[in-house]
Amino acid sequence: VAKIDYPEPILELIAQLKRLPGIGPRSAERIAIWLLGSQSAAAVQLSAALATAVDAVTTCQECGFFSTRGNPCVICAAPGRDASVVCVVEQATDVLPLERTGAFKGHYHTLRGRISPLENIGPEDLRLEHLYGRIRRGGIREVILAVGSDVEGEATANYIAEALRAMKVAVSRIAQGLPAGGGLESADELTLFRALQGRRTL
Amino acid sequence: VAKIDYPEPILELIAQLKRLPGIGPRSAERIAIWLLGSQSAAAVQLSAALATAVDAVTTCQECGFFSTRGNPCVICAAPGRDASVVCVVEQATDVLPLERTGAFKGHYHTLRGRISPLENIGPEDLRLEHLYGRIRRGGIREVILAVGSDVEGEATANYIAEALRAMKVAVSRIAQGLPAGGGLESADELTLFRALQGRRTL
Repeated sequence: VAKIDYPEPILELIAQLKRLPGIGPRSAERIAIWLLGSQSAAAVQLSAALATAVDAVTTCQECGFFSTRGNPCVICAAPGRDASVVCVVEQATDVLPLERTGAFKGHYHTLRGRISPLENIGPEDLRLEHLYGRIRRGGIREVILAVGSDVEGEATANYIAEALRAMKVAVSRIAQGLPAGGGLESADELTLFRALQGRRTL
Repeated sequence: VAKIDYPEPILELIAQLKRLPGIGPRSAERIAIWLLGSQSAAAVQLSAALATAVDAVTTCQECGFFSTRGNPCVICAAPGRDASVVCVVEQATDVLPLERTGAFKGHYHTLRGRISPLENIGPEDLRLEHLYGRIRRGGIREVILAVGSDVEGEATANYIAEALRAMKVAVSRIAQGLPAGGGLESADELTLFRALQGRRTL
């Protein structure tokens, strides 16, 4: 008697789902069965959405954000935005949280990583030459470093600040301090230390 | 200045991923970005696996398990299996855990549900007429009820046992008791009660 398992197309679907970040073997099986059960319309739509997205989405060669219109992307091409201020972020996904604040109306530059000796990622792995090129071409007066407040973000910010020192451009870094709504009792020592250091005169 | 969001194909992909069971908005976004980032080969393969699985997989009209060859499925068609014993399960996904035990070499019958007054699911919503038909056609000597040990499983098992009383077929239910490897101290009261009731002479 042969060993019984799911038919091959289901096993293949489970294998592909298992590769997704955060999806374990059990979730992959559950999703596959759900899709093939009463939800085959959802399966067809997901399949089409994947194919369309892979076809249609590229990244802007200037800022590194997602684009469906090639270069420049909607942000780089927007007439109302200030091209003289460039906000440097680690990942393309950091752009939207900043956009949602409504506090920034300049351009972006995506590094596609951050300096991390532990992961063997150095400055040469980041999109830095391209940033220097943008600055050299002129028209940029300020670079805002919107990198993380962890060790890697610290290293990345310090490296870029140093590298840009010779260039005629102001360099700033987004503030660190108490998160909104948080009391002092819930802040860790380092956060409080940085909040004190970054205090502003009222 | 227009509000910036992900391009439409990414939003559509996120929307489709969000529908999957166990995938929240954040996971959907994370998966979409992962797929469109360095993993577009994975996106293409997942898209193809979905389309293939939807096309190729049906359910066996006899037992209700998945099939890529129409009727009968590999289990119903296997020459080495005992067609006179039918194991009744709630879901098609219950078949493989039973197969993995290696303890059962008969046929299956999938109910596609279980009696649940709270969810408004009654006996008429289960594939019971089809089960009665299989038994009436003859050749089945035992029906094993492999339904859950929760309230709904209890109700389902009792209903089917009663319905099959008039038919010339033995009806059994899989045992309830201590799970393998578990001590008495980790078993709840009801499990212990059932383990006592189901005690076997040595």
